[in-house]
Order: sequence, then structure tokens, then C-alpha cells
Amino acid sequence: MKVTVLQDIMSANDKIADKNKDLLDKNNVLAINVMSSPGAGKTSLILETIKRLKEKVRISVIEADIASTMDADKIIKEGVAAIQINTGGQCHTDANMFSAALEKLPLADIDLLFLENVGNLVCPAEFRIGTQKNIMLLSIPEGDDKPFKYPLMFSTVDAVVISKMDYLPVSDFNLGQFERVIKGMNQSVRIFCISVKNGDGVADWIKWLETQLKEC
Amino acid sequence: MKVTVLQDIMSANDKIADKNKDLLDKNNVLAINVMSSPGAGKTSLILETIKRLKEKVRISVIEADIASTMDADKIIKEGVAAIQINTGGQCHTDANMFSAALEKLPLADIDLLFLENVGNLVCPAEFRIGTQKNIMLLSIPEGDDKPFKYPLMFSTVDAVVISKMDYLPVSDFNLGQFERVIKGMNQSVRIFCISVKNGDGVADWIKWLETQLKEC
Repeated sequence: MKVTVLQDIMSANDKIADKNKDLLDKNNVLAINVMSSPGAGKTSLILETIKRLKEKVRISVIEADIASTMDADKIIKEGVAAIQINTGGQCHTDANMFSAALEKLPLADIDLLFLENVGNLVCPAEFRIGTQKNIMLLSIPEGDDKPFKYPLMFSTVDAVVISKMDYLPVSDFNLGQFERVIKGMNQSVRIFCISVKNGDGVADWIKWLETQLKEC
Repeated sequence: MKVTVLQDIMSANDKIADKNKDLLDKNNVLAINVMSSPGAGKTSLILETIKRLKEKVRISVIEADIASTMDADKIIKEGVAAIQINTGGQCHTDANMFSAALEKLPLADIDLLFLENVGNLVCPAEFRIGTQKNIMLLSIPEGDDKPFKYPLMFSTVDAVVISKMDYLPVSDFNLGQFERVIKGMNQSVRIFCISVKNGDGVADWIKWLETQLKEC
């Protein structure tokens, strides 16, 4: 009985995700679902991307949090339109919440749309929402054993951003081994090593985004 | 319909949690549910606690992960019995999983039992499992804004361990403000500031555990 209900929910979710993707494609919007643990630097990466691209790319952001509008407030300060979704306790964004947010956005005037998901390495990976690209951040202080513990997330994303690289010298994170492990789980994954604090690696990330925008 | 099913699940969970707590009380076992984001240092804190207490306290550990037995292997190396629960994709431990693990443990021979929950600041806070104490770790690199984003966890735990304090000098974490915020959300919460790496603050944590053991 419980299984049937869950299957129904997932199947309904996927149908809405497909509709979301059609809507984004029709409007030539590249949407990126940004996932990570709490505090890995999703908002910082999005803010830095806005600073570097806002003169040539029309960007908008949907912020999903259990509670608060802190992140949306930071985005709006950069002069970029942001919508806050409060999930009301739910640990992920589902296709229906994303659809409701898309309805409020002027999609014809947007090139690049970020959905900053709830900080969680588990549940967001289970829900397709209709974004063309799904990426995750893993910050150096979290440690290099995380792919073994959260395999679904690491094996299904299009890109892994290793964030807070400035912490590497004071940590025991084994970067070479970490990259080999995630490449083993996900052969087509792109890996970026970034410190928003000192700017290292951000240019590669921006270049990748620009390539994706051209292909969209 | 969906709401009814969820209510049934939560009510069934709470009944099993009550049974688990009775069983622990009857056997004079103090059980502590340890929660945090991925990579905040749950395993390191448990390992350090084992090193400092294992000569005088009989400790056991239940490790919950989506996948892998890495953490249980580390605990067993310290000569302490550990059971691994693989939640098979589920983002938290529920009372039923905890009950199944308790059945496998020689409770009469245990004083202190840690349940290391799945790394997640959302869902584990929603499921009572029957432990007498529930604690969370928040590591300095995660940032001081987390109580606003994950209010249920911060407002319901008995103690918050601020971990990886050795990162404080290279971070912009506002410790005073963070402590005021969580005290505002949760007046009876105990706060510990700990670095397992350099040992700072570990003695206070051990002292608190010993007091809880006496009261158990």
C-alpha cells in the first residue's frame, strides 16, 4: 500500500518535471539545479556567477529553503530577480514547487536560471524537477568520503564543484583519490575545483556555463 | 489521502520510539542520537569519545548510512562493537530501523549507545527514534546562518556541538551571534565548542556525558 502511494507520487512528479523542461526549452532558458550539503557554498557560487556574467547574460534565481528568505535577499542585492520557495519542512524541491515558481518568472526575458535547492545530499537527488542540468557542490571541509555515503547524488549529477578549495592546505582531503572515485561512479561528470574566496577556478566554471548557454 | 497516510506513518513511528525508550531505560542504557550535515565530524567526535571513555564506560555504536560500512569499520578498529544500518536510500533513521538494531545488541552489557544518524539537517529531526538524548553537530565551515534555514533541528536538540573550531580563525563565522540565535530558539540547549583535531573543548563534552550517564 505504502509502496503504491510512493510510486504514484514519483510518477506524478516526473510528469510535471517533463512539462517544466518543455517550458524552459521553449523559452530558451538554461536552468541549473544546484544541490549540496548545508553550508557548502551554493549561494556564494551563484552570487559570484552573477557578478561575472550579469552584464551579458540575463540571470534569475529560485531559492528553496525550509524557512527564511536570507539567500533570496542576498541575490536581490545584486540586482537580479529572485524568488524564494519555502518548502515548509520538506527536505527537497519537487517538480510541483519548481513549476509554481516558474509560473511567476518572466521566462522570455531569462537566459540562465538557477534553482538553489535545500541543503541536503540525499532527497534532492531523488526528485527530477525538469532543469536541463543538475550540479552539486562538495566543500573541502566535508571530507573526501562522501561519494561512498551519498552515491545517488554523485552518480547522477552533470557536474561536481569542489568548493572552498582555500581550505585544502589545512585539511586532509585527498583530491586525486576523490576525483578518481567520482569519475568511477559517473564517467561523464565534469569536475571543477573552486574557491570563491580567492577566485581560483571560477573562470573554468564560467566558461562551462557559457558553453552550456550556447548549446541551449 | 496523502496526509492521512503520512499521519499514520508518524504515529506508528512514535509508538515504536516509545517502546525503544522503555527498552533502553530498563537496561540502563543512555542512547544518544547524533545528527548533523554530511561531514560535520560525527564519526570523529564518537571516536574521540570512545578513546577517552572506553576504559570506564561500556560503549556501543549504531552507524546509519545510505550506503557503505566505512564508519562502522572505523569504530570497530577502536575495539568497540558497532552495527551498521544501511537505510537503502532513506534520508534518516526511523524508530523501526533503530528497534531492529537494538535487538542485535547485548543491551545489558552497554552503558552508552551512540546512534550516528544519516548526514542530513532536515529529516532526522522529524523522526523520534527513542533515544533519551538528541544532539547535533554544526561545523564552523558550514556557516553561522544555518539555524535560520534548519530551525526544527536547532530548536529540538538537547545539545549543539560546534565542531571543527580549529577552522574559526580562517572563517567569518560569528560565534557570539550564533550562540545567541540558537539560545533564542532553544532555551535549554547545551552548547559545546570543540575541535577534535587539537582537543579543545572535548573535556567539557566528556564531562556532560558523564553527568548524563549518572542521571540515567
